[in-house]
Amino acid sequence: MNDDHYMKLAIEIAEATKGQTSPNPQVGCVIVKHNQIKGIGAHLKAGEWHAERQALHMAKEEANGATAYVTLEPCSHHGKTPPCSDALIEAGISRVVTASSDPNPDVSGRGIRRLRDAGIEVVEGVQKERADRMNRWFFHAITKQTPYVTLKFATSLDGKIATATGESQWISNEKSRADVHRIRHQVDGILVGRETVVQDNPSLTTRLPAGGKNPIRIIMDRTLRTPPDSIMLNDGQSPVWIVTNAGASQERKEMLIASGAEIIEITDKDRFIEEMLEVLGRQGISTLLVEGGGTINDQFLTRGLFHEVIHYQAPVIIGGKDAQSSFSGAGVQQLANAPRLLLDQEEWFDDDVKRTYVYKA
Amino acid sequence: MNDDHYMKLAIEIAEATKGQTSPNPQVGCVIVKHNQIKGIGAHLKAGEWHAERQALHMAKEEANGATAYVTLEPCSHHGKTPPCSDALIEAGISRVVTASSDPNPDVSGRGIRRLRDAGIEVVEGVQKERADRMNRWFFHAITKQTPYVTLKFATSLDGKIATATGESQWISNEKSRADVHRIRHQVDGILVGRETVVQDNPSLTTRLPAGGKNPIRIIMDRTLRTPPDSIMLNDGQSPVWIVTNAGASQERKEMLIASGAEIIEITDKDRFIEEMLEVLGRQGISTLLVEGGGTINDQFLTRGLFHEVIHYQAPVIIGGKDAQSSFSGAGVQQLANAPRLLLDQEEWFDDDVKRTYVYKA
Repeated sequence: MNDDHYMKLAIEIAEATKGQTSPNPQVGCVIVKHNQIKGIGAHLKAGEWHAERQALHMAKEEANGATAYVTLEPCSHHGKTPPCSDALIEAGISRVVTASSDPNPDVSGRGIRRLRDAGIEVVEGVQKERADRMNRWFFHAITKQTPYVTLKFATSLDGKIATATGESQWISNEKSRADVHRIRHQVDGILVGRETVVQDNPSLTTRLPAGGKNPIRIIMDRTLRTPPDSIMLNDGQSPVWIVTNAGASQERKEMLIASGAEIIEITDKDRFIEEMLEVLGRQGISTLLVEGGGTINDQFLTRGLFHEVIHYQAPVIIGGKDAQSSFSGAGVQQLANAPRLLLDQEEWFDDDVKRTYVYKA
Repeated sequence: MNDDHYMKLAIEIAEATKGQTSPNPQVGCVIVKHNQIKGIGAHLKAGEWHAERQALHMAKEEANGATAYVTLEPCSHHGKTPPCSDALIEAGISRVVTASSDPNPDVSGRGIRRLRDAGIEVVEGVQKERADRMNRWFFHAITKQTPYVTLKFATSLDGKIATATGESQWISNEKSRADVHRIRHQVDGILVGRETVVQDNPSLTTRLPAGGKNPIRIIMDRTLRTPPDSIMLNDGQSPVWIVTNAGASQERKEMLIASGAEIIEITDKDRFIEEMLEVLGRQGISTLLVEGGGTINDQFLTRGLFHEVIHYQAPVIIGGKDAQSSFSGAGVQQLANAPRLLLDQEEWFDDDVKRTYVYKA
């Protein structure tokens, strides 16, 4: 048993909290003395205890002289809770091992310094790559103040999301569709275009056997033509935000507000997506899942405004010049400008495969 | 060491001959006595010795009392060479183990019977699935008298084979493109549409560092507008067959024949692809690689006239409503009618992935 071993355990604990900590990062902590686990902690939810504090609470006086493995540099500032670096010092921890550094350049390294000033031995960067990967959404959101954007689509082998006649249900299988609900459970917001609302009238809720968290439902609707009797506006499951151009019909605006929607107005229509992401970031959306169809996907694609792609592929061929692809619109004209992605993960659901790619800028 | 062990070896030997035996099947043979290899053989080329005879030749008198592992039921008829079942009997083989049966219903089982009648112990079907898979192209060609058709295409993650402006070179990487030459080396014929000839003017030859076999180049050209100065018609690398409708311009026909092309005329234009495959089968094309682009692919797709799909996928997104997909044309209208494929093999070339699928009818 070495530092890698215990840090992996701390990361696994943190990985299990995916989707429940936002806007805070996923953090795990393990306290070890004489190769025995003395405390285990994770940050479970914004406003609640940090991982270090949870683990110290479990360890009690055993923390004295122990090593703390923390997946993220302990904080040094007074936020909703007192700084974790102080808590580690007070508990008598003699050694701290970290994976990721604090992504905020203004405070990065401060927590470490505070620990070292107190005479604690600190080892940094153990299993850093894996820990950084786990919190890539947080690192983006905290440094750019805009959501980490994931484009999700399900296609045939030849990239179609529907037949030429528009038939799109059941391209992917039941297990793939169940997986989409797990993803919804893990994001702050889910975005679709108005056309999807008009045609499919989806609820966009998380339907998991053991229950789940519903994301905020966001509709891109430049002309405010979302039907007020849409399921989303009437099921009371989670807020519905409609993003539109400033100056859209006052009448329709009032009607939709009366139906329970919140209206977000974009002032610069040429920067519609950019401005929308800025507003969503300010409203606390750290992770955004785009389930938009070809046209919406294309707008994120051509502006390079996405970070991750989740692609479900079924081993079926649809063909057809008029069958809708996962990306339509103008597309990328020069191959040299086409975003190149990096395969991050592959998972099989019977014949279907889900692949997660990270965008290499 | 058991029957499976030696049969696997015989199959591995046969697998290595992929592409060089057509129109004959790939066959391997291993002769074993007292757990020692006494003879190894493979059928290398049509007209040359069968695998059993090669192995018996190596074993000489050691064949007496030995076991012969043959990947395909030994033939019982006098073809270009005398029947292998007789050769095994004459050599004094005491036990024969086979994998695949003879696919020809008229003679299937006859070779086995002949061996048993001579007092030889026969075990059938060892590693049958793997051996059948290896010769699936042969089994199709011999029973249907038409080529085994493989559709090959290279796309972006979103199924595009070119940008909206038509840029298509280098979607897949160098290693993927080199692999295409290995496939060309292994097929009897390669098919493209006339538009590909006009626009890309390809040579469609096999360019491998250590040399390779060029497939016969087949152009689908219903109106005989292939330019006589096309590279293919002037490089003398391998025959060029142009498939057209009966009654196409006599003048263009003569011009193309003068340029070295062979013209194949289809009499029923509504069954163009079907009739073409029948003619190609009669002309000895057992394996056909379609490198046709979206429109040609779609014609094979909508008629269900293909057996295998080879898909190279690069982790890049192109998008664009007007960017060509791997399958264009009319496509499949109802999802229930869309061909479902079975993933057979996956191979990575750096970031690109090649997947081979078998069509489940």
